[in-house]
Amino acid sequence: MTISQLELANAIRVLSMDAVEAANSGHPGMPMGMADVATVLWSNYLKFDPTDPDWADRDRFVLSAGHGSMLIYSLLHLTGYARPTIDDIAAFRKLGSPCAGHPENFELPGIECTTGPLGQGLAMAVGMATAERHLNTVFGDALVDHRTWVIAGDGCLMEGINHEAIGLAGHLKLGRLNVLWDDNRITIDGSTDLSTSEDVAARYAATGWHVVACDGHDFADIDRALAEAAADPRPSLVRCRTVIGKGAPNKGGSHKVHGSPLGAEEILATRAALLWEHEAFHLPEALTDAWKAIGARGGAVRAEWQDRLSAHADRAEFERRMANKLPEGWSLKAHIDALLAEPKKIATRVASSLALEAINASLPETIGGSADLTPSNNTQTKAQVALTAQDYSGRYIHYGIREFGMSAAMNGMALHGGVLAYGGTFLVFADYARPAIRLSALQNAGVVYVMTHDSIGLGEDGPTHQPIEHVMSLRLIPGLDVYRPADAVETAECWELAVQRRDGPSLLALSRQNLPQVRTDAAENRSARGAYRLKGADADRRVILLATGSEVEIALGVAAKLEGQGIGADVVSMPCWSRFDAQDAAYREDVLPHARPDEILRVSIEAGTTVGWERYTMVDGLRFGIDRFGASAPADKLYEYFGLTTDAITAKVLARLGH
Amino acid sequence: MTISQLELANAIRVLSMDAVEAANSGHPGMPMGMADVATVLWSNYLKFDPTDPDWADRDRFVLSAGHGSMLIYSLLHLTGYARPTIDDIAAFRKLGSPCAGHPENFELPGIECTTGPLGQGLAMAVGMATAERHLNTVFGDALVDHRTWVIAGDGCLMEGINHEAIGLAGHLKLGRLNVLWDDNRITIDGSTDLSTSEDVAARYAATGWHVVACDGHDFADIDRALAEAAADPRPSLVRCRTVIGKGAPNKGGSHKVHGSPLGAEEILATRAALLWEHEAFHLPEALTDAWKAIGARGGAVRAEWQDRLSAHADRAEFERRMANKLPEGWSLKAHIDALLAEPKKIATRVASSLALEAINASLPETIGGSADLTPSNNTQTKAQVALTAQDYSGRYIHYGIREFGMSAAMNGMALHGGVLAYGGTFLVFADYARPAIRLSALQNAGVVYVMTHDSIGLGEDGPTHQPIEHVMSLRLIPGLDVYRPADAVETAECWELAVQRRDGPSLLALSRQNLPQVRTDAAENRSARGAYRLKGADADRRVILLATGSEVEIALGVAAKLEGQGIGADVVSMPCWSRFDAQDAAYREDVLPHARPDEILRVSIEAGTTVGWERYTMVDGLRFGIDRFGASAPADKLYEYFGLTTDAITAKVLARLGH
Repeated sequence: MTISQLELANAIRVLSMDAVEAANSGHPGMPMGMADVATVLWSNYLKFDPTDPDWADRDRFVLSAGHGSMLIYSLLHLTGYARPTIDDIAAFRKLGSPCAGHPENFELPGIECTTGPLGQGLAMAVGMATAERHLNTVFGDALVDHRTWVIAGDGCLMEGINHEAIGLAGHLKLGRLNVLWDDNRITIDGSTDLSTSEDVAARYAATGWHVVACDGHDFADIDRALAEAAADPRPSLVRCRTVIGKGAPNKGGSHKVHGSPLGAEEILATRAALLWEHEAFHLPEALTDAWKAIGARGGAVRAEWQDRLSAHADRAEFERRMANKLPEGWSLKAHIDALLAEPKKIATRVASSLALEAINASLPETIGGSADLTPSNNTQTKAQVALTAQDYSGRYIHYGIREFGMSAAMNGMALHGGVLAYGGTFLVFADYARPAIRLSALQNAGVVYVMTHDSIGLGEDGPTHQPIEHVMSLRLIPGLDVYRPADAVETAECWELAVQRRDGPSLLALSRQNLPQVRTDAAENRSARGAYRLKGADADRRVILLATGSEVEIALGVAAKLEGQGIGADVVSMPCWSRFDAQDAAYREDVLPHARPDEILRVSIEAGTTVGWERYTMVDGLRFGIDRFGASAPADKLYEYFGLTTDAITAKVLARLGH
Repeated sequence: MTISQLELANAIRVLSMDAVEAANSGHPGMPMGMADVATVLWSNYLKFDPTDPDWADRDRFVLSAGHGSMLIYSLLHLTGYARPTIDDIAAFRKLGSPCAGHPENFELPGIECTTGPLGQGLAMAVGMATAERHLNTVFGDALVDHRTWVIAGDGCLMEGINHEAIGLAGHLKLGRLNVLWDDNRITIDGSTDLSTSEDVAARYAATGWHVVACDGHDFADIDRALAEAAADPRPSLVRCRTVIGKGAPNKGGSHKVHGSPLGAEEILATRAALLWEHEAFHLPEALTDAWKAIGARGGAVRAEWQDRLSAHADRAEFERRMANKLPEGWSLKAHIDALLAEPKKIATRVASSLALEAINASLPETIGGSADLTPSNNTQTKAQVALTAQDYSGRYIHYGIREFGMSAAMNGMALHGGVLAYGGTFLVFADYARPAIRLSALQNAGVVYVMTHDSIGLGEDGPTHQPIEHVMSLRLIPGLDVYRPADAVETAECWELAVQRRDGPSLLALSRQNLPQVRTDAAENRSARGAYRLKGADADRRVILLATGSEVEIALGVAAKLEGQGIGADVVSMPCWSRFDAQDAAYREDVLPHARPDEILRVSIEAGTTVGWERYTMVDGLRFGIDRFGASAPADKLYEYFGLTTDAITAKVLARLGH
């Protein structure tokens, strides 16, 4: 019995509608609407091997319209991936099933990235396609020669990040990137006519893309369009004209099928319309065999590739890089030793550039960049040339004024593997990139954010540019390590930790202004503890001063004044909250011993919101910071204005101590 | 002596370069490059009257490229606004000068909105132009008939929000909106060629815009282009081909002039090139007179308008609305009384829609909307019809999948005046809108964010859609009131407070899931206190349970179990931290009395990050929340999984109490 393409596609449709029905929650419309397109893509174009989901030279498939997750769960199951099983699918959206509401890369091999927050899948795909071209120039066609395919919906195309992502892809001429647009003219509110009048094809063309259209329910036409897309040297948008919920005779084509189960009656009607006689989660063997055969197609291709890899001179390096592993014993020790030998009063953004010189020289996998703040973020090292459409071997990306697109692209690079992406902007504009920073953490993507101008210390640019709530609000994102180093040594330590963490993101908050070197020893990477006693009390300890970044200098000044009056004061530098919280109780107790405030007063100093610092100062401690927006003036004037000086803080601490 | 247009423009150039030089900080390139265009705009097109900066029917001028702030400071000064004075300009970027690094609407009348974070000025202008068309349909041409003019740079056009903003403007056919693009082909990193290859004009055309180009240094050509833009019924992009830092003979045309002072030598050279013989901050009288004459042009127009207003039947209502004042005595008391009379177990997002029925019926100035989540956010009330290009009288905007664009547009509407904008999305996507939410607060814009699906309680959509850090991270933004109401009554109270606050933003975090009505009395708006004792202890008070939103129900359950064991427990509902912190010490002490943990244990319950709750629980209190990402499952399963149930929490509280 020959299985038609329509039958293959209907397997996706039925699995999707049945899983959503069983969950009583989910989005059947998109998987049913795009089933035909996906069938052609996975049958005739996508390079993959279900027996080796991590095959380095596989094509990347990104379901940017992540709410249609049953589409990819169906495809992974049908083509023979070990998971999801049919039971996993039957448990769609239930606790413990890897078939979560939206596709999650940490749940199922074969899911390249976590999608759902619209637009970001496409933007991550731009990063994947960039990494592919870069690695191709490094390792050659024999090892790296694959495509990135995206399914995107109207939501992905309306989100602002779409503009940033396609602008970058067009500029970099990422011809291996093909976006299949599910043009169903329906959004949650109703027809797309309610909110947009754009000529999407013309917009993509204006941005350097090739555009081709097809009837998303005509298999031959889909095939023609995908062939055109694959052949064109530009990134391609394939406009697939589809009917949302295709197959559902009454609800198809309407927004009612977008995000709700079809209901028992419509499911019956759909089964009838599709001539589908099998019960839920049961597929006939001929059909599953046909899908499995499609899944088996890539095995031989992978075997040939494996042979090439085995014989390749660069095999070890390629495997190291694709596994996102550092060279054995990599560290910044030599760089840190040099800093200790010759202390420097420099901004931590400059210290960061010094660390990067050492990092980029020792790690060929780094790809740096900045959202058009290269001279301010100090992210480009001397030997780093630009990655361009003419030369993908470059290791620096001028991302343009696209903070969000940059961050999502970095996620895509990290998830692609083989490159270590870092990128810079001003810390205040972490807000622009925040949805991607969150996804870095959720997806375990080891990217490094270089965020300079981290407080009122940036001075004259004023409140629009001065972070107040940013450092703290970033600390709240689960899994993100936020570093605010105090000097050149800590900056190098934090960079070392960020680079060593290949399974999650790090963010460095760096000063614009110069800071003295407060660290004179480095038997170990002390920043790895998150917080440590930088200076112990000389007199009997009455005060512990906790500070981060540029305010550590102030804390040291306060401590000196207190000691001058016979009051013992520790200074604890606290570059990373999450690392400190992960230390054992004994270490934490040593740094911050339990005591009544009348025994030991704890004082925090950080030029940002004070909310949250109660965790370490206790409520009865003192917190110095800024709980309002900043102002425009030179940095030193602002520190005075906001009371963040050694004198002002010393006076308040003394007053509290009753002196 | 006749003053040429070039001399007028050179006054801007020289003031700008001299102010930046005096500050030793700032951006001379843009004001110098756009001086000619701005001169034509302000001389021949812009409707304004320096003697009445708040004139309701003035044209709105938005400097979206806010780093070029000296352009608008120069224009305001030269045309005769009371401020900035020449001394203010000489103190550019110094503490106390209203001439901040970036233009701030709260510093100087004549500055319509705060800009600097790129792209948002243009997006706010879309909101202003929308408000203008809406008010025009309400009050007629006699009172409302003005334009919105924007100067935007490459940064504004590359940011993702640009896509969202122009998509909305094109769809709504906002022909009164004209964007003057400073096409200088330079960004901070260097040439725009480094990062973009886009045909901007074609992209705008694809989005329904009219595009016209001019030589930005040819006064006649500029005039022709602005005339075309003004005449076209579509929103217009005027591509002004300029030289950045025009006038500086050596540095002009390069990125070196973007964000740094010219330096003494280049300033001398510029003075020579411009044949400018006057010292810094001294302008010849003929020149200042010529500029003042331009400023005086609008006086007669405004007088005529004032006459029309005085004679207008709707004068009082128009003035009330343009002042963003509520009708005398407005409240939601009747609505709240009805809720008390008939308690409801509903989601707070549904309670919000009930409150909105009352609000929209009593306040004609509301304009609601949603970023394509209308059926989920429950933001559209029954009588609310869509505001469309065909009918600007509508009071509901289908913003499309454009959270950031929506939020910035709402800021623009609020700053335009005359409308009260609210808009919805899922709370997790507050991240997409965060830069605009911050600007709502900084700008004192009285918008209301309706953020539903506020926790793991949304269930199956999983971690990408479940807020964890969001409520807390929003509380950190200075000036933003974040509300998380517990039931229908609190939702109405919080809505009342949000509406009554016309000088700053409010954000409502609302549940997807149903919640019982826990409030049975409403002698006053108890949410106005931020936190209040919902239930007092029956037995001797040993525990205070603090909770917000959907977790108040759990807190009441825990209290009941504790009381069952003879342990007295208060339940404090805490819908708004910022309001509680603003209460006097006596009130705060009454709700949260000072006591040792072994006397009174404080316990917080909130289905989000626990970081920050130490402020109210004390470090030695207990905090129940979620300090990791969520999961995909039905809501009740998730609450169990994360230990947020009455039983689980009661057990831990009892254990802590030694029971």
